[in-house]
Amino acid sequence: MSFSIGIGPNIRKSPYFDATVADGVQSFSVYNHMYLPAHFGDPDAEYDRLVNGVSMWDVGAQRQVEIRGVDAEKLVDYLCARDVMSTRIGYGRYVPICNHDGVLINDPVLLRLSADRFWLSIADSDIELWSSAIAAERGFDVEIHEPDVSPLAVQGPRAPAVVEQLFGGWVHDLSYFAFRETELDGIPLVLARSGWSKQGGFELYLRDATRGGELWERVRRAGAAQAIGPGAPNDLERIESGLLSYGSDCRLQVDPADPFELGLDAFVDLDGERDFIGKQALREIAARGPARRRVGFYLDGDPVSGAAHPLPVMQSGKRVGSLTEMAHSHRLGRNIATGLIDSKIGDSARDLEVSLPDRPCRLEVAALPFIR
Amino acid sequence: MSFSIGIGPNIRKSPYFDATVADGVQSFSVYNHMYLPAHFGDPDAEYDRLVNGVSMWDVGAQRQVEIRGVDAEKLVDYLCARDVMSTRIGYGRYVPICNHDGVLINDPVLLRLSADRFWLSIADSDIELWSSAIAAERGFDVEIHEPDVSPLAVQGPRAPAVVEQLFGGWVHDLSYFAFRETELDGIPLVLARSGWSKQGGFELYLRDATRGGELWERVRRAGAAQAIGPGAPNDLERIESGLLSYGSDCRLQVDPADPFELGLDAFVDLDGERDFIGKQALREIAARGPARRRVGFYLDGDPVSGAAHPLPVMQSGKRVGSLTEMAHSHRLGRNIATGLIDSKIGDSARDLEVSLPDRPCRLEVAALPFIR
Repeated sequence: MSFSIGIGPNIRKSPYFDATVADGVQSFSVYNHMYLPAHFGDPDAEYDRLVNGVSMWDVGAQRQVEIRGVDAEKLVDYLCARDVMSTRIGYGRYVPICNHDGVLINDPVLLRLSADRFWLSIADSDIELWSSAIAAERGFDVEIHEPDVSPLAVQGPRAPAVVEQLFGGWVHDLSYFAFRETELDGIPLVLARSGWSKQGGFELYLRDATRGGELWERVRRAGAAQAIGPGAPNDLERIESGLLSYGSDCRLQVDPADPFELGLDAFVDLDGERDFIGKQALREIAARGPARRRVGFYLDGDPVSGAAHPLPVMQSGKRVGSLTEMAHSHRLGRNIATGLIDSKIGDSARDLEVSLPDRPCRLEVAALPFIR
Repeated sequence: MSFSIGIGPNIRKSPYFDATVADGVQSFSVYNHMYLPAHFGDPDAEYDRLVNGVSMWDVGAQRQVEIRGVDAEKLVDYLCARDVMSTRIGYGRYVPICNHDGVLINDPVLLRLSADRFWLSIADSDIELWSSAIAAERGFDVEIHEPDVSPLAVQGPRAPAVVEQLFGGWVHDLSYFAFRETELDGIPLVLARSGWSKQGGFELYLRDATRGGELWERVRRAGAAQAIGPGAPNDLERIESGLLSYGSDCRLQVDPADPFELGLDAFVDLDGERDFIGKQALREIAARGPARRRVGFYLDGDPVSGAAHPLPVMQSGKRVGSLTEMAHSHRLGRNIATGLIDSKIGDSARDLEVSLPDRPCRLEVAALPFIR
């Protein structure tokens, strides 16, 4: 099945939109009400570039929520399930955000730009709307808005060479999640060592939407010697690497999940006096144990072509979980998937199955990540 | 330009998805993180059915936020800029919702199902996330969630005949925005006289997602005598009729607008003691007068093919507004559009222009709606 996407005023174009069109983008998804390239027509080449070379992605749809002002630190501390008070200026942290019921509603990277200024670089849900409601109801003295900031990701083992070519040798000194405010011939940006893959790389947070085409072109030219090419957040690589996708693996309205079910225990700080949204609910969940757990699956049989949508995982005719996304891994020579199953089901269960569109299929539980 | 849409787990399928595919849907948009049919390949026929006959739309993406409990009425009253306390059970109201700064963040229809149970039938922003933050921070005793409810719209002058065929003669007694909880051979639903067009019609709020295909088929068969056919919320008709499209005409993150700029004065109740979110900010805006106003435009020259994205409206080289969506109206024999301009610009301005992709174009201010 293939359908066209409506190009209309209700969905925003990224500042790199025209550049990706010129580079042959074939398919878009929609993320934070913005077009997000899905692929450029050659999935194998795009995967190969990411894993063995270097790939450039328009991830402008990864929007920022800027929180600044006297109470900015206090608000950020109250919003995040993780204790982020020790985050230094120039560093980022991965932070699960839960609602008052302890349900995950986003898992952004928090960037600290100054003592009283933060960005939440968000997954696909409206954290600006939510956090500004909290701030206003609490009477916090902060300003919350979406700044003119649109990331371009450079990902893959050769990403450092490309980014060095653009910015100089200092880029190698950036540790993971560290960033620096800088510019490229007057194009203002934040350069961060980060990105939604496990292949390493950088994100260039462009700070002037009028210069998207220019930045795209500069990255392309700087990467030519490394055979850079366009790509997009890669479903296969993210399953292999065990990366969580808020919106795919869970979503408040579709399949609400708590951070313990999702294996994010290390990023939830329940100890101490610190108060944050959802703490009480999360304590109760932690005490009784989460209902499900996030796992990998191996699927038997012929190569699968990708799950369009979540499938119920069955055991003896009873639903015991869901498979949220699957793909055929060439590197592993197997079909792999990710999903959530009942906590009571052990790793050795041999009677799990799903109904694929064309056949029934046995599942085997696998540890995440599939590839380290 | 035509691109495919990524069909993946991060965007939900409506319960009518498979039925619309079987009926030949060609293009989708994304609304509230759900696929929303954009067209079925024949725009003229789809428009004609809506204006002269009857059309059926998968508007499952118009999600509901259910608010129930002891404090439900109190919360709804606090969320809505309009005074809705007099809303009777079985009736709906159009209600602008603003944030604490008085910026419109959604314009749902509020349905009152019982004394302590409401639905907000929302436009494209996450009001569940926002309203549950408010409720929790205020300590209101309510439960907020997204119920299993997915509207199917039947719109056009022959809609009453189709809906009578399905439910009986009583449907003619429903006044505009009135609804009744009912069923169709065991398919639970709410039948409302409403819909996002000015052609009249009904919305069938399906309450069991597993029965979407069945309901679609029943409506199709009942409508055969009236030559019903599939369609979707229609951009041309909504511009002709002056309907607001939150997400297209304004959006918090893209082009924040207050309800006065948008011409929603009649739905904002600033008088009296009643407190609601944004009241103070809205009083200040009302006192100084809104900065812009929502208008129609006539565009000169050859038929336009639809604005993919908002265009700046210029006057003597200065930006004075934006054109948010345009279309060629066969009924009027003219190019029409909608947008926002500086309040100081009068209806008789003759020097407004936009740059279309292929030519510069003069604009003339027009009153909304274009067609009553």
